[in-house]
Amino acid sequence: MLIHLVNPNTTRSMTEKAALAARAVAAPGTEIRADESRDGPASIEGPYDGALAVPGLLARIEAAIAAGAEAHVIACFDDTGLDAARALSPHPVIGIGEAACHTASLVADRFTVVTTLSRSVPTLRANIARYGLAGRCAAVRAAEVPVLALEEPGSDACRRISAEIARALAEDGSEAIVLGCAGMTDLARALSREHGVPVIDGVTAAVVMAEGLVRQGLATSKRGGWASPAPKAWIGRRLDQARVEA
Amino acid sequence: MLIHLVNPNTTRSMTEKAALAARAVAAPGTEIRADESRDGPASIEGPYDGALAVPGLLARIEAAIAAGAEAHVIACFDDTGLDAARALSPHPVIGIGEAACHTASLVADRFTVVTTLSRSVPTLRANIARYGLAGRCAAVRAAEVPVLALEEPGSDACRRISAEIARALAEDGSEAIVLGCAGMTDLARALSREHGVPVIDGVTAAVVMAEGLVRQGLATSKRGGWASPAPKAWIGRRLDQARVEA
Amino acid sequence: MLIHLVNPNTTRSMTEKAALAARAVAAPGTEIRADESRDGPASIEGPYDGALAVPGLLARIEAAIAAGAEAHVIACFDDTGLDAARALSPHPVIGIGEAACHTASLVADRFTVVTTLSRSVPTLRANIARYGLAGRCAAVRAAEVPVLALEEPGSDACRRISAEIARALAEDGSEAIVLGCAGMTDLARALSREHGVPVIDGVTAAVVMAEGLVRQGLATSKRGGWASPAPKAWIGRRLDQARVEA
Amino acid sequence: MLIHLVNPNTTRSMTEKAALAARAVAAPGTEIRADESRDGPASIEGPYDGALAVPGLLARIEAAIAAGAEAHVIACFDDTGLDAARALSPHPVIGIGEAACHTASLVADRFTVVTTLSRSVPTLRANIARYGLAGRCAAVRAAEVPVLALEEPGSDACRRISAEIARALAEDGSEAIVLGCAGMTDLARALSREHGVPVIDGVTAAVVMAEGLVRQGLATSKRGGWASPAPKAWIGRRLDQARVEA
Amino acid sequence: MLIHLVNPNTTRSMTEKAALAARAVAAPGTEIRADESRDGPASIEGPYDGALAVPGLLARIEAAIAAGAEAHVIACFDDTGLDAARALSPHPVIGIGEAACHTASLVADRFTVVTTLSRSVPTLRANIARYGLAGRCAAVRAAEVPVLALEEPGSDACRRISAEIARALAEDGSEAIVLGCAGMTDLARALSREHGVPVIDGVTAAVVMAEGLVRQGLATSKRGGWASPAPKAWIGRRLDQARVEA
Amino acid sequence: MLIHLVNPNTTRSMTEKAALAARAVAAPGTEIRADESRDGPASIEGPYDGALAVPGLLARIEAAIAAGAEAHVIACFDDTGLDAARALSPHPVIGIGEAACHTASLVADRFTVVTTLSRSVPTLRANIARYGLAGRCAAVRAAEVPVLALEEPGSDACRRISAEIARALAEDGSEAIVLGCAGMTDLARALSREHGVPVIDGVTAAVVMAEGLVRQGLATSKRGGWASPAPKAWIGRRLDQARVEA
Repeated sequence: MLIHLVNPNTTRSMTEKAALAARAVAAPGTEIRADESRDGPASIEGPYDGALAVPGLLARIEAAIAAGAEAHVIACFDDTGLDAARALSPHPVIGIGEAACHTASLVADRFTVVTTLSRSVPTLRANIARYGLAGRCAAVRAAEVPVLALEEPGSDACRRISAEIARALAEDGSEAIVLGCAGMTDLARALSREHGVPVIDGVTAAVVMAEGLVRQGLATSKRGGWASPAPKAWIGRRLDQARVEA
Repeated sequence: MLIHLVNPNTTRSMTEKAALAARAVAAPGTEIRADESRDGPASIEGPYDGALAVPGLLARIEAAIAAGAEAHVIACFDDTGLDAARALSPHPVIGIGEAACHTASLVADRFTVVTTLSRSVPTLRANIARYGLAGRCAAVRAAEVPVLALEEPGSDACRRISAEIARALAEDGSEAIVLGCAGMTDLARALSREHGVPVIDGVTAAVVMAEGLVRQGLATSKRGGWASPAPKAWIGRRLDQARVEA
Repeated sequence: MLIHLVNPNTTRSMTEKAALAARAVAAPGTEIRADESRDGPASIEGPYDGALAVPGLLARIEAAIAAGAEAHVIACFDDTGLDAARALSPHPVIGIGEAACHTASLVADRFTVVTTLSRSVPTLRANIARYGLAGRCAAVRAAEVPVLALEEPGSDACRRISAEIARALAEDGSEAIVLGCAGMTDLARALSREHGVPVIDGVTAAVVMAEGLVRQGLATSKRGGWASPAPKAWIGRRLDQARVEA
Repeated sequence: MLIHLVNPNTTRSMTEKAALAARAVAAPGTEIRADESRDGPASIEGPYDGALAVPGLLARIEAAIAAGAEAHVIACFDDTGLDAARALSPHPVIGIGEAACHTASLVADRFTVVTTLSRSVPTLRANIARYGLAGRCAAVRAAEVPVLALEEPGSDACRRISAEIARALAEDGSEAIVLGCAGMTDLARALSREHGVPVIDGVTAAVVMAEGLVRQGLATSKRGGWASPAPKAWIGRRLDQARVEA
Repeated sequence: MLIHLVNPNTTRSMTEKAALAARAVAAPGTEIRADESRDGPASIEGPYDGALAVPGLLARIEAAIAAGAEAHVIACFDDTGLDAARALSPHPVIGIGEAACHTASLVADRFTVVTTLSRSVPTLRANIARYGLAGRCAAVRAAEVPVLALEEPGSDACRRISAEIARALAEDGSEAIVLGCAGMTDLARALSREHGVPVIDGVTAAVVMAEGLVRQGLATSKRGGWASPAPKAWIGRRLDQARVEA
Repeated sequence: MLIHLVNPNTTRSMTEKAALAARAVAAPGTEIRADESRDGPASIEGPYDGALAVPGLLARIEAAIAAGAEAHVIACFDDTGLDAARALSPHPVIGIGEAACHTASLVADRFTVVTTLSRSVPTLRANIARYGLAGRCAAVRAAEVPVLALEEPGSDACRRISAEIARALAEDGSEAIVLGCAGMTDLARALSREHGVPVIDGVTAAVVMAEGLVRQGLATSKRGGWASPAPKAWIGRRLDQARVEA
């Protein structure tokens, strides 16, 4: 089974970290093919970055369809471009944000999300509400760590995340922690040991969900908002519509 | 006061129709400057079209800021790119979808939205829930009229919309109708007379709200998810970040 | 356009302050005609005061209809008598509480309401939930300032409100503040400058919304709970039913 | 124990019917003292009637406090003036609407309310949502029977209510019916037998709840919105504030 | 009237305490017959204890039906086995948790539940949400008192509960307190006097509700999930199905 | 990896059917060990059957822990005993109801559940609301097929389920169907082909989720309601507490 893991920002080290985590949980026989956007911001912090990352993301989705991918995982906790990608691809598409939150609700009555910057909080809160899990999410907290600080070896990012987790457990009544950024994927196990609660990473959560959908023969329903894009006139730069229609 | 009305699709006739409606309700002294995206789909039907329309929309927002606009109205009922535009601009930004639904809740306990195609329904439902108005919205219905059929003089679009309104009033217990597409803006008054209930058009609703915010001296809070974009590295095509920072 | 601004308590200085604020935001050509109830409490603090203020309010609504008003603004943050006034008048009726909260949701993902006394909090919370905006309202806080203290030049009312706003910004994660009393209308701009976030005043928010409805040709739907009162027998004191029926 | 049953409209036959029902369920030793408003509409159909019925209702509450009542039941399904009455009285106050809906949720997972006129539906829906029982209420339906038709011996009111119940059971998936008007109190048992489901009447439901609160020594909390009215200046007609303060 | 009060744990002293409280509020002519499970845990702390307490509880329900009970009260705040008991019995069944929360919502806009151990909190929160009262419940707090500590004369249980109530009133904005364990029934009056707010005990709340349902002639609807159990094959130990069918 | 699949009713043919489906989706290296309760009803139809099935289910959970299981799947769509099993086991426990609904929300904006009998509907509705997915579930429908009819070769069960699916797609606006009984697991693929939408079976959905949790090293948080049972006195028949404590 070929799973396409796409990082919607343009920072390759994040792609590599996510791919490593994905391969560590993939079942025997699953191949993870990871790439990142070639067109957009180096990190996604807030809705402006997120919106401008989508065309580059969709180009990678399209390329992966052509290359035989059977499912896609979008490796940004904002679930950047998830609806558009579901419309575009005939295969299952999983966002790491939704995957992490659904997974957390299987091991905890209430969980807290710890993300990078407070400017991402409203987007995450809105996503979680839309998925239906607002009642299971005690809080969305920001450790005030810029996304790319997670890529710098000497930064205090991990320490700040751990401190925010400690506050969450003390104040929110949470039973588990969801790490709110793809760049935190390598921290989950150590933070879980440190704090004695499940710590969920969205990349691994999404990979096993994507595998599971493929094995069940399930793909995105095309009956509603995720119907394939309708053919129409376009002006200016655009994705290769012909390939989409094929 | 200069209000920027931006059509996020590339169809000029829709821009012109919306501008006409906007000018008809604007207060004395308000200038409406309308344009449309120069980069993207000719109509927005579903989340794939919507996502790819955002960069072209943001380019027009940016240009309008430079040209002295004091507020922006996004003239697509999906409220395409609303979060990104709010982050980008220092001025108020109003989506016609949110404007219409807030307005409807001032004249009706429950309203029905009548939109074009069923593939837009989940996006609208999610938006309305996020705005908080799900409890006021009895249903989101599709008349199964393609967006551009609204631009064709001889089409049966208006007849089908009217028939869907009749069904909404008979079945939903609604007290008002919200027209769910910028292309329907010219139909509101006649449909209201025909059906004997308020029929709300988002373009005019958004224009008076945008004017109102400017007159009150209110603009988007920059404390949360609508903070100005952070400076960072970009790859490939992008908006002129320098101007955004200025 | 003639807008009727009605203060449902009997304190004229509050009427005058609200009228001043209303005129400052009204569009050219809009006339604000303001009056207050002649029958009821000097301030509305809690549901007992509120209920007994309604007959006096409705009498002013009725008089304003006769005098040619095209819309009514109810200048109490409890939205006192809003449903009854909507049933009574053929014109749009806007409460300053609903207007402020709808407006806040256009410039902030989450806002805090700062009102006068804690005895008003449950009414405001219930109203906001009914409007659908509970998810947008982080908290309703009381500064524990009696309504009429806002009319006393030397009182510490403004200082206490400012202190409560500081607490709201520190503790609630709010991005904007809604002032929860018509008597605070003159404080909005200064508090906004002091705290660096949008501070919304309901009087001005309601005036521009009322103007907007009139310019759109929209009025209260008569299909549901706001249908005109049915003729019937009355005992004792009552409004002049004949005039209502006419 | 002395329970005060107050009909907030001015129609004595409705008071008498409610009193009869109340006495039939009261425990040994409970005295039901029933009266009706002497100032207001002959029936309450929609929010205009409801708002103008409150002063007359509060006058009866005040008189009953003076006469030694230990609890009050407001015998209108709109729960007219409930918040104001709770603020006014030191004793428990129960509305028949809330009593019926709480009671229904003890014998049915979902219930349907069948009320008189559709103009009352939004008020009932808002009340039920505020009580928290919206998820338990499958629908609020109107039999389109004017309130006073329930007082006319030869009317087809009962037949229309029964027909609406039949539709509710067929279409709503409800397990019980709540009768949505004090004037229907005499119909509950026969309709329950006819339709084979619990049919809840609010008058009897409220009487046993009021008795129960008194026997438990519970009364309205005065810590929030139901605090006793604050002393203040009044203009025009008013309740006897001195007696309230005493 | 014969009311069956059943303690679903096996600790007789809790039964006796609950019976005492029940008799103190019962109306003249009501007989309270109390028993406890003979098969299961000595206290119910969390869902494992709760699940294993149900067969012993249902055996007592069955025996009480045979003995002529007209209603059942389940004296555990978790409302242990409530759905199963409603299916089993033709008579009304009331859980003390639901009774207390419905009752609290008649005397307070918002209440806090103070229970024994934090491991019970998620169950209570889920129950309250299902009943519809989540919006009325400001918090569910645990005093971290084991259930059986309430049976030990010298324990500091009451002091800890009182301290938790003080915190609830200071931090939650609550207007009333619900005691979240049948073993606290004897503390309600003293805690109410101490803290100056209504303190609701579920045992007494449930007894008066059960009496009320009987007097109204209401019983559990058999149209939905509480239909009588269907006859079918069983393996191993079981209740006497024949008696159930009879 | 050893996954324990437990059927909480006593009908072996259902266990075998579920085991077959489970093995068909399990990853290489996963062993499915399936058993059924030896103590309880032959099918679970409503809350009475469900409650009495739990002790037998917990006994199988306990035995499977001793036999080295790394995760448990409860193969009844009611998620019978899920909370108790999570408290009992140190390993992940997945109910097929929750698994199916979380999975459906990854491939459809809205889904309909088609279950066996209407007496199961309220339990399923309550479960789905608790999981947070009520907003994603358009309806819970009953095909009125007894559970064991699914085990009879010549029954019309499949035809009735297919007819109910057709009604769901026509009336609910659903984009996917969830099969609401473990006994329907063999029908999913054929019904999906017939109706052209994703049809989700909970058994396979739960197996891949359980595998995924194990591969991620995640287990139930013991910080809240799913803490291990506290040691205490028991009367009568009971699980082997010593083994639970070990």
